[in-house]
Amino acid sequence: MKLTIDHTRISQELDTLAAFSDAPAPAVTRIVFSDQDMRARTWLKGLCAEAGLAIREDAVGNTFARWHGTDPSASSVGTGSHIDAIPHSGRYDGTVGVLGGLEAIRALQSAGFQPRRSIELLLFTSEEPTRFGIGCLGSRLMSGSLTPGAAARLRDADGQSLDDVRAHAGFGGEIESVRLAHGYYDAFVELHIEQGPLLEQRGVPLGVVTAIAAPASLRLTIQGQGGHAGGVLMPDRHDAFLAAAEIALALETAARSTGAIDSVATTGICDIFPRVINGIPSQARLEADIRDIDRARRDGMIEKLEEACTRVAAARGVTIATEFINRDEPATCDPRIIAALSEACEDRGLPFDRMVSRAYHDSSFMSRICPTAMLFIPCRAGVSHRPDEFASEDAIATGVLVLAETLARLAV
Amino acid sequence: MKLTIDHTRISQELDTLAAFSDAPAPAVTRIVFSDQDMRARTWLKGLCAEAGLAIREDAVGNTFARWHGTDPSASSVGTGSHIDAIPHSGRYDGTVGVLGGLEAIRALQSAGFQPRRSIELLLFTSEEPTRFGIGCLGSRLMSGSLTPGAAARLRDADGQSLDDVRAHAGFGGEIESVRLAHGYYDAFVELHIEQGPLLEQRGVPLGVVTAIAAPASLRLTIQGQGGHAGGVLMPDRHDAFLAAAEIALALETAARSTGAIDSVATTGICDIFPRVINGIPSQARLEADIRDIDRARRDGMIEKLEEACTRVAAARGVTIATEFINRDEPATCDPRIIAALSEACEDRGLPFDRMVSRAYHDSSFMSRICPTAMLFIPCRAGVSHRPDEFASEDAIATGVLVLAETLARLAV
Repeated sequence: MKLTIDHTRISQELDTLAAFSDAPAPAVTRIVFSDQDMRARTWLKGLCAEAGLAIREDAVGNTFARWHGTDPSASSVGTGSHIDAIPHSGRYDGTVGVLGGLEAIRALQSAGFQPRRSIELLLFTSEEPTRFGIGCLGSRLMSGSLTPGAAARLRDADGQSLDDVRAHAGFGGEIESVRLAHGYYDAFVELHIEQGPLLEQRGVPLGVVTAIAAPASLRLTIQGQGGHAGGVLMPDRHDAFLAAAEIALALETAARSTGAIDSVATTGICDIFPRVINGIPSQARLEADIRDIDRARRDGMIEKLEEACTRVAAARGVTIATEFINRDEPATCDPRIIAALSEACEDRGLPFDRMVSRAYHDSSFMSRICPTAMLFIPCRAGVSHRPDEFASEDAIATGVLVLAETLARLAV
Repeated sequence: MKLTIDHTRISQELDTLAAFSDAPAPAVTRIVFSDQDMRARTWLKGLCAEAGLAIREDAVGNTFARWHGTDPSASSVGTGSHIDAIPHSGRYDGTVGVLGGLEAIRALQSAGFQPRRSIELLLFTSEEPTRFGIGCLGSRLMSGSLTPGAAARLRDADGQSLDDVRAHAGFGGEIESVRLAHGYYDAFVELHIEQGPLLEQRGVPLGVVTAIAAPASLRLTIQGQGGHAGGVLMPDRHDAFLAAAEIALALETAARSTGAIDSVATTGICDIFPRVINGIPSQARLEADIRDIDRARRDGMIEKLEEACTRVAAARGVTIATEFINRDEPATCDPRIIAALSEACEDRGLPFDRMVSRAYHDSSFMSRICPTAMLFIPCRAGVSHRPDEFASEDAIATGVLVLAETLARLAV
């Protein structure tokens, strides 16, 4: 089958999508259910409608754009990703999988391909944890990995509940209805930038993902004692920020000492209270992200973090409360989908590497309910979640070509 | 002279003042030129007017309430403090010196005392650095310790200039005019809670301050590299927050290792950018407060901080920019005012200790332009800048009594 990928169109569409942003270019900020997110969704649904896709939105805003197959009774093939973007990030994370998935469908349509199984493009709600503190919100709910009860307790920084926010965005209905019926998808495949440096370093255009790291994230609340920065003597202090500093450094040490390059840990949030130059911090709140492709090694880092909390709490006379935001299993990709991706690469004469994903993705949760795999393309210097995140037009087009070929193989 | 201090009135007035707050009781938040600050000022000026004092406000909102003396050509005697309160703090810091100063004047009036020198109650603008980053704004300008040019560059967190904010609050005019003429005051004395534990520990009701610690405050901007919390391997990171954590801990070590109990250092502010759980911090901004009654020892801590910055920048591949917000000299109190305070204590049969102030005060800057000293009263457990800050009605009344006696001695 001759497939033509429209390089210019997908580049222009990525540019247009990047402009739906609350940060000045080249930075992108697109928080779930913000005005910019809602405007971007409307624009995207317009593109899908132009391509003749039938659109459905669920109660949490996950959006399904279906190209009907000739056998309506057959389970569908899904592809897609997310368009929400953390503050001050870039334009390729997630968006390449959404617009690339659409372009793959359009290329198959142009080539006269007729799928037996319906092919569905997915836009997942809130892959990023920015607003509600938990990542992969849409796919967690779709796969039954987050209970409706837990979802009902989610709040954003302004104290608004997920239920209120989604209703305000026009997504009503019972949260229970988001969960997909067993066997809904026969296969799911997600195109994504690598968010790591390996493909670029090796000069390989494609990565077939065999496993996705096990992420955990924690919130640590450290309660010390405030006081006057001049008046309280050093031996009498119970400084919550200094306790937080020690814990963040201990977590770094834990990640650097597992002996495995795949162990990573990040303390991305540290909020201090009362946050004044002449007041001793009485409270600090850390949020930490800990990942490994090996669950035992990931849990080893968590243990060391917990040991550090115990040690620091005793030494500094502070209390430390630890709360898991999530503590997920690693995901294993499905051999059949891995094979379909590999054969698609080989068919097009494109080299590829089998690799693991140290970033997590909606595919982590899709893998719990259907055979799933991912396709990676290189991004410059492995940079992601930054304004200078970059994937070349050629790299994207190559990914879209293999995705289209794979969808065709899976949908026959 | 028989002096009667009205315990109930000053307690009630402290309660009323505490209610002008942007935080729920018992916490007090009263940021300079906020609505609550402006309402509190209006109420206070009303009390001063009731006491027959003549009110003048300067271009930065420093407020002078004058009890005219019999010799208008004589330099005045000043007393007073501040009413602004850092977020989530208490009700006695500063306010005891303002309402206590007013009560002292009223007690002298009731006793039929007639001052030769005018006695002026001062309300200093922005002793706290909360809004514009620099403490003692009003007294710095009054004493010529902050140039009008530097004042014109001050901005609050919303980017509003001091000039715009003071104009909006109704304080127009040239900032140059705030500086007091040479010899304006013959003496200045400030009543304040100790903000430290010594008087309470020793069971001594009064402290006569002989020196005020030399404060310095710095802003450190650490520029690292952001990136994806899953994608960037640990050895490739340049995490700005972890650099900040090391620096804050190094500053603590510096303060704990001078060998002197009067050395204190605090990192009260740490802001992270982009502040997301799954993004490596690309930037961190620290604000640190370093104090000692010995200037050389204070500067030694600063040197160790700077060494730590150099070491951490090299080790982590980050850049660190250091900017002094202020770096003040210690203040020495005037022997004549110290003697007046001491004799007032002795006259009333009240024990007192000579002591240094590790907190800084507007008196630090008043001491540059006129003979100055301070009078401390105990506060519970030395706690200050916290909602549970407390000074007893008796302790306050004792302080007011000695202040009144001292003003009388200085004003004859």
